[in-house]
Amino acid sequence: MTHHISAMLNSHPQGVDAARKESLAECIAACFECSQACTACADACLGEKMVADLAACIRTDLDCADICAATGNILTRQTATNTAITRPVLEACRAACAVSADECEQHSDMHEHCRICAEACRRCEAACTALLSAPA
Amino acid sequence: MTHHISAMLNSHPQGVDAARKESLAECIAACFECSQACTACADACLGEKMVADLAACIRTDLDCADICAATGNILTRQTATNTAITRPVLEACRAACAVSADECEQHSDMHEHCRICAEACRRCEAACTALLSAPA
Amino acid sequence: MTHHISAMLNSHPQGVDAARKESLAECIAACFECSQACTACADACLGEKMVADLAACIRTDLDCADICAATGNILTRQTATNTAITRPVLEACRAACAVSADECEQHSDMHEHCRICAEACRRCEAACTALLSAPA
Amino acid sequence: MTHHISAMLNSHPQGVDAARKESLAECIAACFECSQACTACADACLGEKMVADLAACIRTDLDCADICAATGNILTRQTATNTAITRPVLEACRAACAVSADECEQHSDMHEHCRICAEACRRCEAACTALLSAPA
Repeated sequence: MTHHISAMLNSHPQGVDAARKESLAECIAACFECSQACTACADACLGEKMVADLAACIRTDLDCADICAATGNILTRQTATNTAITRPVLEACRAACAVSADECEQHSDMHEHCRICAEACRRCEAACTALLSAPA
Repeated sequence: MTHHISAMLNSHPQGVDAARKESLAECIAACFECSQACTACADACLGEKMVADLAACIRTDLDCADICAATGNILTRQTATNTAITRPVLEACRAACAVSADECEQHSDMHEHCRICAEACRRCEAACTALLSAPA
Repeated sequence: MTHHISAMLNSHPQGVDAARKESLAECIAACFECSQACTACADACLGEKMVADLAACIRTDLDCADICAATGNILTRQTATNTAITRPVLEACRAACAVSADECEQHSDMHEHCRICAEACRRCEAACTALLSAPA
Repeated sequence: MTHHISAMLNSHPQGVDAARKESLAECIAACFECSQACTACADACLGEKMVADLAACIRTDLDCADICAATGNILTRQTATNTAITRPVLEACRAACAVSADECEQHSDMHEHCRICAEACRRCEAACTALLSAPA
């Protein structure tokens, strides 16, 4: 997915700062992959016999899916970007990914979907951190 | 809409803290109303002859619509709420509403849709602030 | 919410067909109310001790919330509307609302959140039907 | 992205029909890639000097982004799938992709972002068609 995202960034009429472009494309891809993984993990948890023990995992998955999708859309836009919006959004996304990863890691030994989802959350958490520290 | 939202909060099996319930219901309603207003304002700006002068307004409208919808969904959930997610999400939502309101207010005299949208953004900004300072 | 939605429709630079405006505003409001109700019902079901018996209800709630939110956004836009998109979207939304209402009605006696959610789904189903038969 | 999507499908506790799994994973990936491309194309169009001539393209991009994201989420879920929802949703997604592709193709010679976006829309349209004709 990162290839397609980079191609779109390269085609933007106003250009995208070269120093940020790679970390931006990776963060956008990580957001959408994490959102999809969280939606899938919430649904897989819902299909488990022990679903009652996974309520907190489903809840954080759903929250993380919502904020990652919003962040992916906001980062995708490059016309008139305002860091007064993008910075707190990235911080909220990173926080949700960290909480969701913590939660899924508690069930990683028992549920493969939680293991995969935790990895996607950690990748997105790291991508948000990298983008927050990239040159403005 | 607040009436329906409150009815759903009242029906939650684990209950919702009475001290927060009113500010919570108002914030959820404000998030969805602001998201709808921003989507409508971006579209109305797109239909204006002077759309080229409204690019920044459309951009902030679209960002604000995305984060308000995500925040409205996240606040709607009451099972296993984690303030490590909800607080930064509320802060990001408040920030986006403030920026979008600032932007729309610059065009409020000329465009009724910007005037209405700015009001919805200010209401949502205030509702996020109120909920952030409500008793945990 | 319908009041705010109508005010935004009235401020659109290209105008909105008067014969459709009322059914349009009602359908947009019904979509967002149904989306919120389904998100809340899925979460309330998740908080029930008998959550394992409510898996299908949660699943249809989540699907209905997604399609209602998308439909609400698409109907909100009035610049260059293309009925080749809006009609099948309305049909999909109506179908999801009907399925979700059927599911929630099975639990309406036991769970107040399912009763309220079923009503929101039926209102949205009816609003989609009314808009599909409104003058183009 | 398809690799991660397939891994999550393979980890679902109730399994996914082997005859559909590949077309399902491809359609989910196509939906999220198309949604991201449409969000990016709408933003790139907004940054063009000739944005006033691209209003219809931006509008269809935004609609297509919304329905593709909803469809990607709905297809991701595998617990208690109901084809009375998934079929009309796939038909609406396919219709929006076709309209958006038609629109973007009119500007493909002039705007690289429209060319890339049109391709993503055509891939998603084809993936919806393939999944609609896959064995139930």
